[in-house]
This record gives sequence, C-alpha cells and structure tokens, in this order.
Amino acid sequence: MPSKPSQSAEDYLERIHELLESKGTAHVADIAQSLGVGQPSVTSMVQKLADEGYLHYEKYRSLTMTDAGRAVAERIRDRHQVLAGFFTLFGLDAETQARDIEGIEHHLSADTLRTLADLTVFFEQHPEVLKQFKANRPAPKAGGPEA
Amino acid sequence: MPSKPSQSAEDYLERIHELLESKGTAHVADIAQSLGVGQPSVTSMVQKLADEGYLHYEKYRSLTMTDAGRAVAERIRDRHQVLAGFFTLFGLDAETQARDIEGIEHHLSADTLRTLADLTVFFEQHPEVLKQFKANRPAPKAGGPEA
Repeated sequence: MPSKPSQSAEDYLERIHELLESKGTAHVADIAQSLGVGQPSVTSMVQKLADEGYLHYEKYRSLTMTDAGRAVAERIRDRHQVLAGFFTLFGLDAETQARDIEGIEHHLSADTLRTLADLTVFFEQHPEVLKQFKANRPAPKAGGPEA
Repeated sequence: MPSKPSQSAEDYLERIHELLESKGTAHVADIAQSLGVGQPSVTSMVQKLADEGYLHYEKYRSLTMTDAGRAVAERIRDRHQVLAGFFTLFGLDAETQARDIEGIEHHLSADTLRTLADLTVFFEQHPEVLKQFKANRPAPKAGGPEA
C-alpha cells in the first residue's frame, strides 16, 4: 500500500499523467523540461514513485502508471478542476486563479473541496442567485491587475 | 519601507499581536512557548522583524509593534477570520477548518479573499439561499471524522 505522496510527488504524478494522456508517452527528459527541473532530480523522484507503487520505470522507456498512481493523478486533476470551476464563477482573472490554486490545492481537505464543488454546481444550476450575489457585492472590483 | 513578510514572519507577527492584545505584553519566552520553537529562533526572527520596521525590540523588555507591524498582523487576522467565517457557513468541523485555513491562508490573493468574504456576507444576508444550497447538496456529509 503506497504511503500518501508528498506535495512535490503529487506534482510529478499530475504531470506524468498529463503527458501520458496528451502524448501517449512520458519520458524523463519530457518531465524534466515540463517541470523545469534537471533530469537527475526527475530520475530520483521517479525511482522513488516506482518503489512506492505509483509508476513502472524502466530506463530509456516511457513511464507507465499503476492503478494507484493513476488514482492519485486523477484525484489531483479533479481537485484542480474543482478550484478552477469555483474561482471562474466569480470572475477572478486567470493569473490570480492559477497562482491561488497552485498555492492552496495541496492544502485543502476532501470535505472543503466537496463543499466548493457543490457550491459551484449550485451556482451553475441557479444563475439567478449568482447574478444576485454579483449585483450585491460591496465593491464590484472586476479583474484588478494586482492582488 | 518594510518588504513583504515571509509566511513564517507573518506567523510571528500574528502571534505577537495576539499576545499584546490578550496579555498586554509579548516577551521572547512567551512567543517561544506559544509557537513551540526555541528562544534563539524567536530572538533571531524578532531582530529581523525589528530591522525591517515591524517591531521595537529591546532585550528583556516586552516587544511592541510599529504601525507597519500592526497593519500586517491585522491583515493576517482579518484573512483568518474571512476563511473561518466562510468555512463555518458550511458546517465543516473545527479541526478540518483549522487545518485547511492554516494550509491556505498564506496563499490566497486579496481578490480571492474578498470574494470569499463577500460570499459569506451574501449567505448571511440570504439564509434562505444557504438553506436551499444545503438542501440540494448531493451527499449531505455532516462532519465526517476524516478528510
């Protein structure tokens, strides 16, 4: 049973999953380029993730994910999408969103994420409530450049 | 003009402000005990914060805060209260709240915090909407023990 991956391990699993979905392969060199880190760091992390049961790693071949690795990567992607969906409702600009999501996505409990996901669905299903909220906001600051 | 304090510096300023408000004094020993760190670490951070214009520090005397330090501490407290107010709306249990807030409070932009604060006020002013949201939640999981 693999232990809970660290924040940084989560970033690797997320990126490897994205590469496998978009290109069909995930090589150490692609991951290094995509995450902006050196290949030795990638190799070391990838070996650790393989030891922990998230990946299959053979030198010079594309990585593949185990079911456990895929489950973690999909949970991370879902979490990211929950936050993006929630933030998008309120017109926060893309850069602020990206920065905030990156900062908080590893820190939110499942209960809180479920609440944000449910709120997003609720507002999507009740656009009149969202409109009412936006109309009532004290300072309707639409997309200020600096946080 | 002091530079933006680091996350850890923010924790110190928050705690010193709390001590000054609750006890009227903030000594290095109290801060060390309250943050669970050694006195040498506190002394070193407190000297740094004094150099940066957030505090007045004289050995063996209680710390006092400058206006700049007080402004930062109050911003941190406001931020914490915004998040606590928002999470409380949705019945997230205290432990989950505390852990999530600690994880994310240093990472949210002013725009996002303002959005959460406005949402909290909106739900407080429209309890019928909050009730409707809660009634419609797909899995009304009230206070599960583990995230």
